[in-house]
Parts: sequence; C-alpha cells; structure tokens
Amino acid sequence: MKISNITSEMPASAIRKLIPFSDAAKAEGVKVYHLNIGAPDIKSPDCAMKKVIDECTGMHHLSYTNSAGFMELRQGLVEKYYKKIGINIEVPELLVEVAGSEGFASAMRIACDAGDEIIVIEPFYTNYQTFAFLYGITLKTIKTDIREGFRIPDISEFEKVLTPKTRAVLLCNPCNPSGKLFSKEEMLAIGEFCRKHDLFLISDEVYREFCYTDEPHFCALNIPGCEQNVILVDSVSKRYNLCGSRIGCIISHNKDVMAAAMKLAQARLCPPVLGQYAAIGALDTPDSYFEETKQEYIKRRNVCIEMLNKMEGVYTPMPMGAFYTVAELPVDDAEKFAKWMLTDFRLDGETAFVTPAASFFRTPGVGTNKARIAYVLEVPQLKRAMEVLEAGLKAYPGRTI
Amino acid sequence: MKISNITSEMPASAIRKLIPFSDAAKAEGVKVYHLNIGAPDIKSPDCAMKKVIDECTGMHHLSYTNSAGFMELRQGLVEKYYKKIGINIEVPELLVEVAGSEGFASAMRIACDAGDEIIVIEPFYTNYQTFAFLYGITLKTIKTDIREGFRIPDISEFEKVLTPKTRAVLLCNPCNPSGKLFSKEEMLAIGEFCRKHDLFLISDEVYREFCYTDEPHFCALNIPGCEQNVILVDSVSKRYNLCGSRIGCIISHNKDVMAAAMKLAQARLCPPVLGQYAAIGALDTPDSYFEETKQEYIKRRNVCIEMLNKMEGVYTPMPMGAFYTVAELPVDDAEKFAKWMLTDFRLDGETAFVTPAASFFRTPGVGTNKARIAYVLEVPQLKRAMEVLEAGLKAYPGRTI
Repeated sequence: MKISNITSEMPASAIRKLIPFSDAAKAEGVKVYHLNIGAPDIKSPDCAMKKVIDECTGMHHLSYTNSAGFMELRQGLVEKYYKKIGINIEVPELLVEVAGSEGFASAMRIACDAGDEIIVIEPFYTNYQTFAFLYGITLKTIKTDIREGFRIPDISEFEKVLTPKTRAVLLCNPCNPSGKLFSKEEMLAIGEFCRKHDLFLISDEVYREFCYTDEPHFCALNIPGCEQNVILVDSVSKRYNLCGSRIGCIISHNKDVMAAAMKLAQARLCPPVLGQYAAIGALDTPDSYFEETKQEYIKRRNVCIEMLNKMEGVYTPMPMGAFYTVAELPVDDAEKFAKWMLTDFRLDGETAFVTPAASFFRTPGVGTNKARIAYVLEVPQLKRAMEVLEAGLKAYPGRTI
Repeated sequence: MKISNITSEMPASAIRKLIPFSDAAKAEGVKVYHLNIGAPDIKSPDCAMKKVIDECTGMHHLSYTNSAGFMELRQGLVEKYYKKIGINIEVPELLVEVAGSEGFASAMRIACDAGDEIIVIEPFYTNYQTFAFLYGITLKTIKTDIREGFRIPDISEFEKVLTPKTRAVLLCNPCNPSGKLFSKEEMLAIGEFCRKHDLFLISDEVYREFCYTDEPHFCALNIPGCEQNVILVDSVSKRYNLCGSRIGCIISHNKDVMAAAMKLAQARLCPPVLGQYAAIGALDTPDSYFEETKQEYIKRRNVCIEMLNKMEGVYTPMPMGAFYTVAELPVDDAEKFAKWMLTDFRLDGETAFVTPAASFFRTPGVGTNKARIAYVLEVPQLKRAMEVLEAGLKAYPGRTI
C-alpha cells in the first residue's frame, strides 16, 4: 500500500523531530532544559480558566458554534482587545480560527493557487514552508544578515524576487524565530510594495504583545492604502499563554478574503468551543498582565543574550520582540549538535535542548551553524541552561573553533 | 485584489449556507425547529465536564500537548474504549485529530495526490466533496436507490468506476446523511475489493454507537486481510454529544499511514487541549449511557419516519443507524423549499429547517427533490416539527403533486 507522494515527501517538523531524543534522555533521568519550543511558563490570566469552569459547570452538552466562532468572542475581540490597541475593525472582518496555525494556512490558501509564489523574509517560521509544500506554493526568500540584526533590506531586494506568479508577502512581526521587530518604516515600505504590485500582505502578529522597544508595535492593518491587501493572523496562544486552547483569528477588510475564510472554516465545522470560552474569559485580562509579562521577558532576554554572546564563538543579536533568538554557534552542523546534546552530553545529569535553525532558512547553508533559542524559562533556570549549553559547546566533537 | 481560484470556486457549505435565513426568522420571533444539523440535545456524560473542571481548577497555564495528543487519551481510547468493543489496536496506531473532520481530511491526503480518485457511495457526507475539491481529488460515485433503503449494490458496480487513478474507497458507517448501516457482508465485500486493487478503505465511523439493529456494528478494522488498507476515522463529537470539543482520531495498522498522519498533525501543532480533557473524562462513561441514548433515538426515529411516510408524496426508508434520514419530498427543488420554509412559511409563528440533499449526491438531479432530516429533537418537539413540515409541504407553491 503506497501512500500519496505529497504526504510521503512532506518534511517532518524540524522543531518537533528531536523530541523523541529528549524523551529518551528524560526516561534515563536526565534533566532537559527546554530552549527548543515556544511554550513559556508564564501563568495564564485567571479570568480565562474561570470562564471555562463557569461554562462547564452544569453544562448540558457541548454544541458546535458558528464556523466563524462565538459572536461573543468575535465582538469581544473587536471591542475589548483590538479597539484598545488602535486597530479598528468590524465583527464581519474577524473570523475565529483553530489557532494562528489555521489562520496563516487559510491566508496562504486564499492568496495562492498551486504554482503561485509568496515572498518570505529569512529566517521564517518553519511551518510556512510546510503549508507551502502542501498547497504547491513556492516560497521566495529575502535574505537578511544576523550581524545586522536581521534588518529588512531595501525594497529593491523584494523587487528582485517578484515574478508574475507572486501573490503575497508573508511576514511574522515580531518574528519567530529571530525576535526581529519590524519598524513602522519597514512595514510602510513593504505595504507600499504590496499595494503597487497587487499582493496580499499576510501579517502574522501572534507575538504582538511581546515587544521590547519604546515604540508601540505597528500593525499591518494600520498601513494606509493597504486595506484590501492585508490579511492579519493572530492568536490567543502566546498572548495569554493559552497555547493549548488552539484559538486564533484571521482579520481582513477585504470582503472576498473573509468570504473565502468562511468557506474554509465551514469545512471544519467550528473552532474548539472550550478554547473559545477560555479566549472569551481572557478578554478581561488587566493591562498589568501584559506589562508584568513583558518585564519578565526583558529580564530573561537580557540574561539569555548576554550569556550567549559571552560564549566563545557564539553570536546573537539583541531581539526586540517575541521570546526567541537565533544564535550562530561554533559547530559543524547545529542539527547534529542539538541531537548530540540530547543523546550524548550531560553536565551533572543535565542537558539543554535547542532547535536547529536550518529549517527557518531556504538559502542553502545559511542556517546550518545556527540554532533558535527560546528564552521561556525563569531566570535561575535559564542561567543554568546557558551554562549547560556552554559546556556542551566546549565538549562537542564537531566544534569548529 | 483577486483571491485564489481554489477558494473563489470552492462551494459554500450546503448544510450551513441557509443558516442566515434561519437567524433572520428567529430575529423576527419565529420559532425554528432544527431538523437541519446533527447537533443533538442529548446530555453529555457528567464525567466529561468534570474532568475539564478538575484540570482547569488552579491550572497554571495551558500548554501544547504532543501533536498526536495526550498519551493518557491515546492509551485510554485503546484500552477503555476500543478494546471493549472488540477493536484491538496499539497506541502508536492511534493519533488524536481535531475531530472527525481533520481525521477524514488527513486520510484523504494520505491516500491521494491531486488527480487521484476516491470511490464514495451516494448519498455521502457533503464535506468529503469539500476536501476532495481542495486537494484536487475526484470523487467517483456508486449509486444507490432510496426505494431499496440505500442498499449497497453488487461489487461489480465498484469495478465499473475503478480506474488506474483510484486510490481509496471512502464510506461513512452508519451513514450521514442516509442512516444506512453497512452489514458485515457488505463491509467484507468492500474490503475484499480494496485488498484486491490495493486501495485504502477510509471508514468514517463517528456514528458507531448509534445502531438500531440487533447485530453489532461491524468495524472496518475487523475485516480480515485488510490490515494495511483500512484507515479508521472516529470522533467523540457524536458518541458523547461533545461536538464542540473538536476531538477525534485516526487509526491504522499501516505504519506509513501513521507516519504521514503524524507529519500532518505536527503542522498544526496539537489538538485542542481542553477538548482532550473532556475526551479523557468521557472514557469513564458507563455503558448505560449508550444504551439509554440508543433507546431515545429509536423512539425519535420511529416517530420521525412514521410521520414522514404518512405525509402525502413523502417517502423515506427506515434508517438503521446515525440520527438522520433522507426523505423524498413532493417539491420542485428541496433547496428552494428549505429556504422558503425559513423566509415565507409560518405555522402559528413556527417553521422547520431541513437540509436540502443535493450536495450529498454527485449524480445530477438525484438529490434535487430530497432533504436530510435529523431526528435530534425530543419526541414532543419532533412531532410538532413534523406537523409544521407537513403544513409547509402542503402550502409550498412549488409542490409537485
């Protein structure tokens, strides 16, 4: 029995494929510091779980909702969240998705047919490539330089990869994996490029609340003249540390986009209803929650970046958003190194798990000596994880310095 | 801004597209009897919501799970549910999906590349066609006759639609929309056909607990010699009336199938975690729950079928499973009729909502005068809904008798 070529040839998740080695290490009693995945340990706001408990108490049965999600959630997002941060949308312009994952996958489907192209900026979230593969879309990449803090190059670089098949620019702001925060000027320039060439601008802003500059995050929906181009993808996963709720949304002023999003949504009937309750509850999160979370991440980031850059042969820029950084390591191959850390290296019975960055790049060779580090541990644990990582780098047989 | 051809040309859900007219009727104060959707009013088992409440109480934050779902849920399904009903599987042969919808969509992807074909039996669940459209798969249909209770024809009919591009047979047992329950003999014959031609047999058994004959449901996994062919799709939505939990699973003895299912699962990170808790809780549902539910549905079915067949010009066979029936109506076009009921017809301020059946068929014309009726209301309400439907049929301007 032969399975389809598409699922046979589909690459396995680069982020998740080392997990069996981590599990095996843990089974041996090794403590593994997880720097590999964006699953932080910050507490969710109490109002989220309270709403779930209230709804489940005495619940008769758990029905479907509208494919676009509960009206209460859609209205709440529009009025209690987006309005407050200066994003003005109407309820029909927002549809609840099965997390940001369904959001950007739908946006890619809506923008492209098989054979079409999307411009992405390296490094980019690896599952953009997964869905591009499934949909027959080609990603064309814009290169950036880690030594320049992944600065967005001049728009002429975008013009160079433009072809008649280009349908969209897809970006993540702040960026997973690099922590790069797009400036207002960068967003306006990309917006102008999209407007000029009739491209969709798919803006994945699931890390919006994690920005560490004094300037506010500049949302793609606020680019003047791009109302019909922008498709915003958002999620409650990161914002409230409700990753398991699987609730996100897709937002656009473009009516055709929303009609298509609704047809795609109807095919999977409705978003998870218990997660929708958590998201409704989370709408009452006090502003102080975001401020406290941000201060905590700034502390963690500073520790992480300082310790990384003190390690011999390691370089990472200062990320201004999200809770990741991409670091250059003095290793022959970061994937071999990451696996070796899990299978061979122990420091007093401990090891650290980093994500090899090759899958975040498409330009051959650029990601080979890089890893994504998520600073999602409390400071004392994070410090220890960095010590373990440093010791591992010193002991690794494929060390290049 | 032009959206993709695929999402532009994708048909809207036939089941859900009349909902705005139903909402409008309700906004006018009209009582609408919902015979249109498989969202029953049966109580969920208490243990399901209790588990959610227990887990949410004092929860720190809501993490991702493994892409295949909680190990506790997978083990629980294998040991507490499937073993008990005579289906012997190992944990690696089961992966938790975002409801049956993701389950059959993944199975179709795993079986077929674009351009391939799947054999389905008319009438079939309309979203099979939706995903076939998205994946570029052609559905080839086996005709059945409502007057013969949608009996499965001789296997020679399957041979007739077989081509070198055929990759699978996809069936729903018991069937949404017809209520047809496949006999053991029918399943063995289809299994033999699949084995002989190296086809996958995708068996959607989400209504397994709703069978109204004395013989037990015959699961596709129990067809001898078809271990490598069968992909089982299942769900907790219907079994425990937890439709909103969005938890289902895909099961196969075929290792390549499960490896592909895992790659697809990793792309969407993990199934909804709160719904997984509900599903874990539901594993402790006492057997009496299924027996009571079944007796309730038998009552409802008998009322529904008897009253339908007493209406002038209406015919429906006796369904032996699920909670739907397909009825032939004396109307020019069941979609026009269904819409007219919502927009124009009122009996003492009430109307009834049925689903036009055209989208459950691919053979042109066969579904035009048919509707799917879900008997998901309590008997007194169901009786009244039938009276309203009968009055509507008498008053409808497009009546054909």
